[in-house]
Amino acid sequence: MTHPAGAALVAQKLDQAVAILGEQNVDLWLTLVRETLLTSDPCLDLIAGTYCAWQGAFLISRTGERIAIVGRFDAASVEQLGAYSEVVGYDKSLRPALRSAIERLAPRSIALNYSESDPAADGLTHGLWLLLSETLAGSPYADRLVSSEKIVNALRGRKSAAEVARIRGAIEATEEIYADVTPRLAPEMSELEIAALMHADVSHRGLGYAWERDHCPAVNAGPDKEVGHSGPGELRTHHGELLHVDFGVEREEYCSDLQRVWYFLADGETAPPPDVVRAWDALWAAVDAGIAVLRPGIAGWEVDSAARESLTGAGYPEPMYALGHQLGRSAHDGGTVLAPRWDRYGAAPFGIVEEGNVFTVEYGTAVPGRGYIGLEEDVLVTSDGVEWLSTPQRELWLVP
Amino acid sequence: MTHPAGAALVAQKLDQAVAILGEQNVDLWLTLVRETLLTSDPCLDLIAGTYCAWQGAFLISRTGERIAIVGRFDAASVEQLGAYSEVVGYDKSLRPALRSAIERLAPRSIALNYSESDPAADGLTHGLWLLLSETLAGSPYADRLVSSEKIVNALRGRKSAAEVARIRGAIEATEEIYADVTPRLAPEMSELEIAALMHADVSHRGLGYAWERDHCPAVNAGPDKEVGHSGPGELRTHHGELLHVDFGVEREEYCSDLQRVWYFLADGETAPPPDVVRAWDALWAAVDAGIAVLRPGIAGWEVDSAARESLTGAGYPEPMYALGHQLGRSAHDGGTVLAPRWDRYGAAPFGIVEEGNVFTVEYGTAVPGRGYIGLEEDVLVTSDGVEWLSTPQRELWLVP
Repeated sequence: MTHPAGAALVAQKLDQAVAILGEQNVDLWLTLVRETLLTSDPCLDLIAGTYCAWQGAFLISRTGERIAIVGRFDAASVEQLGAYSEVVGYDKSLRPALRSAIERLAPRSIALNYSESDPAADGLTHGLWLLLSETLAGSPYADRLVSSEKIVNALRGRKSAAEVARIRGAIEATEEIYADVTPRLAPEMSELEIAALMHADVSHRGLGYAWERDHCPAVNAGPDKEVGHSGPGELRTHHGELLHVDFGVEREEYCSDLQRVWYFLADGETAPPPDVVRAWDALWAAVDAGIAVLRPGIAGWEVDSAARESLTGAGYPEPMYALGHQLGRSAHDGGTVLAPRWDRYGAAPFGIVEEGNVFTVEYGTAVPGRGYIGLEEDVLVTSDGVEWLSTPQRELWLVP
Repeated sequence: MTHPAGAALVAQKLDQAVAILGEQNVDLWLTLVRETLLTSDPCLDLIAGTYCAWQGAFLISRTGERIAIVGRFDAASVEQLGAYSEVVGYDKSLRPALRSAIERLAPRSIALNYSESDPAADGLTHGLWLLLSETLAGSPYADRLVSSEKIVNALRGRKSAAEVARIRGAIEATEEIYADVTPRLAPEMSELEIAALMHADVSHRGLGYAWERDHCPAVNAGPDKEVGHSGPGELRTHHGELLHVDFGVEREEYCSDLQRVWYFLADGETAPPPDVVRAWDALWAAVDAGIAVLRPGIAGWEVDSAARESLTGAGYPEPMYALGHQLGRSAHDGGTVLAPRWDRYGAAPFGIVEEGNVFTVEYGTAVPGRGYIGLEEDVLVTSDGVEWLSTPQRELWLVP
């Protein structure tokens, strides 16, 4: 939902969208939604941030027109935004107003939010696609529908200064929570106890979660945990073992996503043992190899590949996931990913990195008998490289 | 997300789904999702309640097989449910496992979650539809895709005893919050102050909101408010005016949705004035006219029509919305609606009411110079009529 400062951000993103339509040579971008409590298009937050009970159409034209056609009771919220040049509130049917707006704009191409590869650009449901096809049937516009993939990728991916500031705020809060929790860690704590400490801190700070609370934080204590998306459980921290946490918050509608790792010193130890250090160094070398090539103009898969070759070259198993994803309104923000060219990523690894993109960089590996090490930092792509948005955890955190 | 008791509920709904497939003569129901932080199919909560980072396919066959094909890191959560006979975790591509499962089941029809009319049955994105079409291209299954609309309508709409118990719990909590707030109301309170009282109560009880917090509760004080989906603001309660609130909570994943109305007595008044009483009585007569015909076998629009004719016959303006919608995991739970046959409702008003459906019944009208009266109660459809799940507000609540 749109917070007080949200309306200004929406207006900013709409200006940006108009510029992108010019750049992409697309006349009209149409976001079509319905009962957003049930299915929501991720673009709606970006361009309106309001709820729609009934069918709603948001039209942004290359010539700068911004038209919202929404149900009568949804119109007040859209008008309050002040970002649309025209807000039409309808009663019985969306279609006449939609048809007439399209006829008036007479676009040579209409971009819709569907994509095989990018979930952030795939908010149009198939039922709404059918409804729109019927609505335009017989008109010349029925054959002018194209995917908005590139528009959404650019609009979502090129963060404005205000968006980067919000992401920084979320990261800062996350780092403070990690700092709060660290001195309270001790051997024999359960994953659930550690998650509860972090939940209390999030709640105290009035923050939201970057992903579903049951798995945020993910907490992995020691070597017996199958690391994945399963939540914290009854496993406990032990001397001579690792603790791994993956955690992010939502603050002012923007997210962070950071992993941190602690080593619980065994009797007589003053530093982590060689097997742990070796894995830690190999992971950082891999992440740094990716960072070294991460800049505007490179394809996502090339960045992943540099990191991947470094890690497997050091004798560690190939990670079965991407080096990085974009971060913004969602912890997984869609668009270009720093991922291998596997079928499940579709075309996303072939996307080109742009200035203003915010990526995670994250790789991990299990250390037998010790637990899991996962690195994850957040970076901003600048004109010639990256800026770290998080304070990189260059050393393991030690718990006595 | 699935709460502790959620897994049992998922298993129950899957049993019910198998029975419905038999009844509808459909061999396979396929729910296809991807990065559910960005776009989520409302069916996923019903049949799994877990998050999917990568593409995930949930197959329920008429013969009782339940197969989940999900990313490697998503598999643990699905396995923990214990509701799927087979959980496949893949690494690089969903498609080979999906194709082979479909070939093994050899369905004559495959129902997918798309619908022009029912948002609850329209969770499949157009991009995933294209991806599936490509995956099945050249196989006989490409031409066997049908809408799951009727399956989802039945599965979501026919509430089990456990689901009704949860809805009752949400309604009870809502009525308690209304009871808590009523003695604290006074003239000259702003809508935002009233919303803040209710938010504090929700938070104290550890409940969630039935819709977005900014508009839950909707608070409408006096005659100057444009009633709709716009949030509480600076308008204040006054003697001789009405206060209207629309509010619902989410408790154990199920929702309530109830409107309540207060009249602030003017100097010397001991009861509401005739204009207010007349509107109140006309609204209740209309709702009761709908309730009188609401039973299994009737079409949604027929129920709305009985109520609508009563209200317009009494000389009040025609409501530009439906008499009622279903209630469950979502405040707007999809399926058959008690709505007029307007284009924006598509086929939903033609749906047939079934035993076990839970509906809101709600109509309202503005009383010039006084404010807005909106009634809304929640009812369960029984074998021969309805049972009130809420305690109907038969009288206006008076504030001295």
